[in-house]
Amino acid sequence: MASGGEVISNKQVIFKQFVEGFPKESDMAVKTSSISLKVEEGSNAVVVKNLYLSCDPRMRFRMKHSKDPGFVSFQPSSPLEGFGVAKVVDSGHPEFKKGDLVWGTVGWEEYSVIKNPESIFKIHHTDVPLSYYTGILGMPGLTAWAGFYEVCAPKKGEYVYISAASGAVGQLVGQFAKLMGCYVVGSAGSKEKVEILKNKLGFDDAFNYKEEHDLDAALKRCFPEGIDIYFDNVGGRMLDAVLLNMRVQGRIAVCGMISQYNLGQPEGVCNLMNIVYKRIHMIGFIVFDYFPQYSKFLEVVLPLIREEKIVYLEDIAEGLENAPAALVGLFTGRNIGKQVVVVARE
Amino acid sequence: MASGGEVISNKQVIFKQFVEGFPKESDMAVKTSSISLKVEEGSNAVVVKNLYLSCDPRMRFRMKHSKDPGFVSFQPSSPLEGFGVAKVVDSGHPEFKKGDLVWGTVGWEEYSVIKNPESIFKIHHTDVPLSYYTGILGMPGLTAWAGFYEVCAPKKGEYVYISAASGAVGQLVGQFAKLMGCYVVGSAGSKEKVEILKNKLGFDDAFNYKEEHDLDAALKRCFPEGIDIYFDNVGGRMLDAVLLNMRVQGRIAVCGMISQYNLGQPEGVCNLMNIVYKRIHMIGFIVFDYFPQYSKFLEVVLPLIREEKIVYLEDIAEGLENAPAALVGLFTGRNIGKQVVVVARE
Repeated sequence: MASGGEVISNKQVIFKQFVEGFPKESDMAVKTSSISLKVEEGSNAVVVKNLYLSCDPRMRFRMKHSKDPGFVSFQPSSPLEGFGVAKVVDSGHPEFKKGDLVWGTVGWEEYSVIKNPESIFKIHHTDVPLSYYTGILGMPGLTAWAGFYEVCAPKKGEYVYISAASGAVGQLVGQFAKLMGCYVVGSAGSKEKVEILKNKLGFDDAFNYKEEHDLDAALKRCFPEGIDIYFDNVGGRMLDAVLLNMRVQGRIAVCGMISQYNLGQPEGVCNLMNIVYKRIHMIGFIVFDYFPQYSKFLEVVLPLIREEKIVYLEDIAEGLENAPAALVGLFTGRNIGKQVVVVARE
Repeated sequence: MASGGEVISNKQVIFKQFVEGFPKESDMAVKTSSISLKVEEGSNAVVVKNLYLSCDPRMRFRMKHSKDPGFVSFQPSSPLEGFGVAKVVDSGHPEFKKGDLVWGTVGWEEYSVIKNPESIFKIHHTDVPLSYYTGILGMPGLTAWAGFYEVCAPKKGEYVYISAASGAVGQLVGQFAKLMGCYVVGSAGSKEKVEILKNKLGFDDAFNYKEEHDLDAALKRCFPEGIDIYFDNVGGRMLDAVLLNMRVQGRIAVCGMISQYNLGQPEGVCNLMNIVYKRIHMIGFIVFDYFPQYSKFLEVVLPLIREEKIVYLEDIAEGLENAPAALVGLFTGRNIGKQVVVVARE
């Protein structure tokens, strides 16, 4: 146990209990613990100082006592975990040294011990905002890239619809689709987000789903010719309405179903017969399968950022104290763009 | 109009009215009309004598006033239409001559005029039962072949589940899957059908879905390791239970959803989040897209029949008078195997 090294205080966001329904700030607590900044002898772990934390919808799964494969529940009384950008403070792993910048899964705390450093990526390009490694250059970026180019198999001129379109993933899918020459419509949950989609992100059209009492009619208005590609971030009744508006040979990339995550019983989707009539491919995917392609992805996306061919909206919360509210806000759509929490800037 | 030629009586099954809910025999009427057996001069039509008619679940779509693409409604007061095997009586088309055997879309009547003979296939192999061209060598056979080999992309040793497994398509998918070295389980709606699946068709296991109050539990019993491939003929709550039991990277070929065809409002499917977790590919397909591969299909399947590596169960109804009952019986599961109506044997 005794490994020496400086022991300092470590502010943490503690997961209090398993959650049913919408998560609340009171499901978490900010507490202060302590941590040794030195890696134990013989360990190949890495100790990092966390800089930016990512608020991700899929963290919701870990807040319940999970029976679902692939989601290990958070431990009550332990810190939450999620993707983050961090700086190496001490390393027992030959590939990492003090001062290295990394991104990967960390605790929601000021300092974390990473016991499996193989799972983290070293950051080599720092001419772009470091926080981007929680978003456009991290998991959401790879999700958008793989989901659009690999899963949707898009063609120039196709009609593309994206739900949760101003979110961490959706805003990128829309911009990738525009770069490919598609017609792109997004939906979001406020007038302000709709304006951003149309005016900042270059979508051809957008609508506020909260103001549409008939989603089928809204989609028919935006897509009189139907939809070739639906990038689904929300599931539920939106998916049901989309199925009515898909074109023959259409593709639905199922990235997530945020509308369902806080429901005890998911909504039923009734229009699946359209999958047969229209020979639809509905394809679920998980970004982790595409991690081996991360460097290929960077080669494509870094130049797009540098040449300002693509923009990325972030919603920055300052300080770990504000992390619970930031996470909870994802599920009410409070954030505009990628929700990031700044723990420290360097 | 006047083209001469013999005019004879023509018994027909007339579609009386658009149908809601389960179709009934009284939605159809057997009447006698008359027909000229001579093709009109200058027409490239073909006149055929119908031998075998196919009862297909998808005929149900044509019994309603259709808003769905790809299904042209039956005309009230006209004969129903469906796949059938027929003999050419007169031909205005250079590719067909009197005496040729053909299969394709015909009227439910003793004699039909086929105005677009390009849509029918000439039968070249008559060492197998002619009725097979409504089943294993016709549309259902091609459906099973394309759906299994092309859509499901099966691998040896995979776990395959088939609903409506003793039906026209399901019985073949199961046998194809066994030939490939898969573990195959089917469900059907009676004890007798379950016995046939296990004892005549070589399925590894089978269950009567009507006797299972918990479909999820039944699937877990039959597939403790989960399902790689689900060939879906029924949709609805069976699909919902299957989603809970799919394996990672599983494939669902959506061939039909017969459990939903007679419902005013389709059942909701709630477990679609599994598509994301498990990276499931859910793929709708329609056999018509595979018609160009029909001769390739024949090359594979004819030898399997001749070498008795595959069997095919038919349920034969004698005479046009019994055609309405035979069709209606599909939706209550009365038939065992492919439901055929014999109009004439030669």
